[in-house]
Amino acid sequence: MTPLPPSTHDTAQFLDYHVSMLRDTVRTNAFREAVHATVVEGDVVVDIGCGTGILSLFACQAGARHVYAIDRGPVLDVARDLARRNGLADRISFLRGESTVLDPPERADVLITETLWNLGLGEGLLSTVSDAVRRWLRPGAAIIPGTVEVRLAPIGLRGLRERLSVADLDYGVDFSHLEAASRNVPRSMFIWPEAVRCPAQTVWSARLPYGGPETIPMAAEFVVETAGTVNAFGGWFRSDLGGGVVLSNAPPSAAPSWEQAVFPLSHAVEVAPGDRIRVALETDATADTTWTWATRVLRDGAEVAAFQQSTRDVRLLTSA
Amino acid sequence: MTPLPPSTHDTAQFLDYHVSMLRDTVRTNAFREAVHATVVEGDVVVDIGCGTGILSLFACQAGARHVYAIDRGPVLDVARDLARRNGLADRISFLRGESTVLDPPERADVLITETLWNLGLGEGLLSTVSDAVRRWLRPGAAIIPGTVEVRLAPIGLRGLRERLSVADLDYGVDFSHLEAASRNVPRSMFIWPEAVRCPAQTVWSARLPYGGPETIPMAAEFVVETAGTVNAFGGWFRSDLGGGVVLSNAPPSAAPSWEQAVFPLSHAVEVAPGDRIRVALETDATADTTWTWATRVLRDGAEVAAFQQSTRDVRLLTSA
Repeated sequence: MTPLPPSTHDTAQFLDYHVSMLRDTVRTNAFREAVHATVVEGDVVVDIGCGTGILSLFACQAGARHVYAIDRGPVLDVARDLARRNGLADRISFLRGESTVLDPPERADVLITETLWNLGLGEGLLSTVSDAVRRWLRPGAAIIPGTVEVRLAPIGLRGLRERLSVADLDYGVDFSHLEAASRNVPRSMFIWPEAVRCPAQTVWSARLPYGGPETIPMAAEFVVETAGTVNAFGGWFRSDLGGGVVLSNAPPSAAPSWEQAVFPLSHAVEVAPGDRIRVALETDATADTTWTWATRVLRDGAEVAAFQQSTRDVRLLTSA
Repeated sequence: MTPLPPSTHDTAQFLDYHVSMLRDTVRTNAFREAVHATVVEGDVVVDIGCGTGILSLFACQAGARHVYAIDRGPVLDVARDLARRNGLADRISFLRGESTVLDPPERADVLITETLWNLGLGEGLLSTVSDAVRRWLRPGAAIIPGTVEVRLAPIGLRGLRERLSVADLDYGVDFSHLEAASRNVPRSMFIWPEAVRCPAQTVWSARLPYGGPETIPMAAEFVVETAGTVNAFGGWFRSDLGGGVVLSNAPPSAAPSWEQAVFPLSHAVEVAPGDRIRVALETDATADTTWTWATRVLRDGAEVAAFQQSTRDVRLLTSA
């Protein structure tokens, strides 16, 4: 059942991915509004992770003198075509590669970077912005997004076990190693509001650029109000993109090109009113590709469940 | 919104993909049954595109003396772990790479290859099997799957335009090039029976190995019985895996790890009873990565719509 061979299959995925982002009018119009509120006539703009270049086109519509649009992927060809067909070939320079490696042709007045993962962090946003401030931007340049806030909640997600688990399969095979790996990797999934067991808490927020420590600890304690199953933590973001334009993918996600982040628990836990659920989630500001989450569930002060999980424990992550 | 950076995101996708295939008990048990009906005590088996190696484990359960399990992906590490933890490390050799490039250590009595795309063809099945017969198998060796049959039907899929199309988006941007590209690439999608406008027809079938011409033409004419919208052709397969074990992903797919193949039309067509819908779909037996589909709709003998589409027209396919 594996998909079509690379060329056709990859192109289908690639097209559907970018079409789905363009079709997310909440996302795209929020960025459009923030770009119009931020970019002024004559600005130089840098757009990092430009994708189809839609935000660069908006920057031109807002009066940018020139835009440097950067992406490492093959989508840069689509972006270049789109700019040409929209008469903007001479106002946008397309640069293929990593913004942290490329040499800036000139300093910019505005940075645009839609590198927000489902949790806000998770696509290298902080390190991208820090590097851009040092090398791509003039002092005092504007940044879109302006702020990022990470929110977490314990959730009980129906179908999670069925998606992650192989332990129950009856093929006469021991799947325990694969099972363990599968539970130690965060996922992108849609979280319905009904799955959220306790009100979400803000566990981290920053105005960009972020200048704090390299390790980002995100901790919270939740008090259970209603009995139910908890099998993961869900996470999402809230961001003031600029000019007061707020974008969030809180469930039910109004911006459908983002799902939410899901950090599975090693095992589902039945919780009761009054139980306390403590989580300590960590990632690193430089790459934010490694995730560690420790969970404790307390009842009347006694620990009834405790899990220590990390993507570091998944050998696939390093060998894949 | 782009997903997690490569390592975590790729691992999540990779795990979910293989877990979903293992959890497809219709798929996995059909192959298990075919393997047990085919492999006899002492056989040498080659498993091409082995994934987690589940079919190689079944071959051992069925009495194989030795299995050569081949995959080009990082999943081979998972497969090796799984074999070791199931006490089969000395009976399965894991070979990383393309079966068409690797050198066979010995000739096999049975070939297993689950390289069936949603349409049957589409993952290089025919060329993989042809090469294996020449280089990997002893004369008269058994092949799983034994037969492949491709079926096609005109469909009217709700939400197809919304998934593929950017033409209606109101951002002050001309998306016509991206729009055209998006309509000329086949997709994997779930087709509900209600979407099927005319009974499916078998447009190609073969017992493996396939020894026919390099170009595979798949043509059919459908007579419309009920008025409705047609916006694509849907396709699926039916296969006798071996020993009379039949597997199919006809909608509604009983084997959920396969969706169906969808070949969009350039434009949706409203059809009326008595209309004739002709399709000529072509691919190549050597790589089956290029797809061309020509469509004609006739009413009272007069052409009311005609589309000529091909993945060759999508520049992204070559530059991506």
